[in-house]
Amino acid sequence: MNDASRTGAVEGGVEEKLMERLTNAFELARWRAARRMQGGMIGFVPTMGALHAGHLSLIEAAGRQCAHVVASIFVNPTQFGPQEDFSRYPRTLEPDCAMLAEAGCDAVYLPEVAEIYPEGFQTSVRVGSLAEDLCGRVRPGHFDGVALVVTILLNRVQPDSAFFGLKDYQQFLIVRRLVTDLALPVQVVGLPIIREADGLAMSSRNRYLTPEERVRAAALHQALLAARAARRAGEEVGRELERIARAHLEQAGLDQVEYVAVRAADSLQPITRVTDQEDPVMLLAVRLGSARLIDNMILARVD
Amino acid sequence: MNDASRTGAVEGGVEEKLMERLTNAFELARWRAARRMQGGMIGFVPTMGALHAGHLSLIEAAGRQCAHVVASIFVNPTQFGPQEDFSRYPRTLEPDCAMLAEAGCDAVYLPEVAEIYPEGFQTSVRVGSLAEDLCGRVRPGHFDGVALVVTILLNRVQPDSAFFGLKDYQQFLIVRRLVTDLALPVQVVGLPIIREADGLAMSSRNRYLTPEERVRAAALHQALLAARAARRAGEEVGRELERIARAHLEQAGLDQVEYVAVRAADSLQPITRVTDQEDPVMLLAVRLGSARLIDNMILARVD
Repeated sequence: MNDASRTGAVEGGVEEKLMERLTNAFELARWRAARRMQGGMIGFVPTMGALHAGHLSLIEAAGRQCAHVVASIFVNPTQFGPQEDFSRYPRTLEPDCAMLAEAGCDAVYLPEVAEIYPEGFQTSVRVGSLAEDLCGRVRPGHFDGVALVVTILLNRVQPDSAFFGLKDYQQFLIVRRLVTDLALPVQVVGLPIIREADGLAMSSRNRYLTPEERVRAAALHQALLAARAARRAGEEVGRELERIARAHLEQAGLDQVEYVAVRAADSLQPITRVTDQEDPVMLLAVRLGSARLIDNMILARVD
Repeated sequence: MNDASRTGAVEGGVEEKLMERLTNAFELARWRAARRMQGGMIGFVPTMGALHAGHLSLIEAAGRQCAHVVASIFVNPTQFGPQEDFSRYPRTLEPDCAMLAEAGCDAVYLPEVAEIYPEGFQTSVRVGSLAEDLCGRVRPGHFDGVALVVTILLNRVQPDSAFFGLKDYQQFLIVRRLVTDLALPVQVVGLPIIREADGLAMSSRNRYLTPEERVRAAALHQALLAARAARRAGEEVGRELERIARAHLEQAGLDQVEYVAVRAADSLQPITRVTDQEDPVMLLAVRLGSARLIDNMILARVD
């Protein structure tokens, strides 16, 4: 173990961990080879930057499970629709790197677009039924872009485990299916949503909210809690659970609801009636001002 | 090195190399881990069985470049159209395994369909413009199936190098593009066409030919040679080279021509006029009786 390569003396004699910045496949491969020589597992956290405590919880979880942790920051153009927020998506590289280092990340991969999609690129990856409904219906092509970039990043980084937040629940299921189907040699780990004090799920897009919108945004979590409470009080009808959640959203003035859906937690198939044997997931997507917010919750019968 | 595990005494005291048969991902992973412990590169030759000297040349090339050679035999359903020959494609497992062992193959992966496409499978992989013309036009979906199974097999086997015959020239370019685009960590190697004495490119589908058809099939190679000779004699016009080859085919009674095409050797883009700077490839596809035959040749200006 060459810990000296990963630490540096800073002023005042305190040692601060240094994080390596890897800008291309060659540097990434060299980093990986060195870590493989040291032994221990490599954990990977792909991100689009604009980091928040949700991302950091992934880094920390990776650090508990793996000897080496590498993140990526790449705002992936292929997962944004032509009318979406690719160009205005927040780019906050220096604060992001400081946060990653502080959370214990050993390296960050910062590819340019041409590094991921070189000239002549013409391959696509698609997951079927899991990607067709919900966000897939509202954002055509979005999950194709996610499936493609995840495949490329996993092949470049070649980690033992990759960590994804469950806020993007549909994305998590798609990535897990993709990895199984294509036999990618990596373990996919999903980790719980991290929320603000008022329950709003952490998201890079929350910064699009005005202060007034930010207050109202807490209704997403409230709506999910109301649906879960109703389920626990005996409500079994999927449509009724959806109606309860939607009423909460509308009461808070969130009337641009894209979907409120109770679905099977594994397949995302619609559920007519909830059974005691299987906890469904409720998924929400709402437009609020210039932001698009999503959230979800397993409507667990018991905690 | 534990060579004892790979050899067995046969009657008469002669040692014959044993080839391991791997039927699932677990056995494959165990085989790979053991070879990785031994060190040296792993070479992989994916096949659909019905082996001939063309396949064996790939095994032998892999053996020259790699310490360990694994082949696969899998008749991949997703690359056959509904009207194609999936069900009657020749299955000749025992002779295939004998030939592989004889050629120096260390292991053969023999997955069932459900091992490659498990229940719930829903991922697709597609290569774009390279796959759209020529065989891609005649066999819609064929190259999607090829791209998918190659991705899965490469991820399962995780070889250092994978070997493909250039008889399937368009397939070779597609696989190379796929591996580059998805950043699959493997080197793709293309190897020359192996031909019968009369020039017919070796193919598992040649066994569909009647004796009379088999004689006429030599015209494919003759047509390519004629086009190459014309190029060497100064012919520069793509359409004229195609006309010369087509005339040869029709003279031999091969009138079910799917395509005769002069293309850029890297991009497969049509070529109006051949230049001295770049040798094009000529590609042919012909139906003959119940067989579909393809062949190709770089129309090299000099040998």
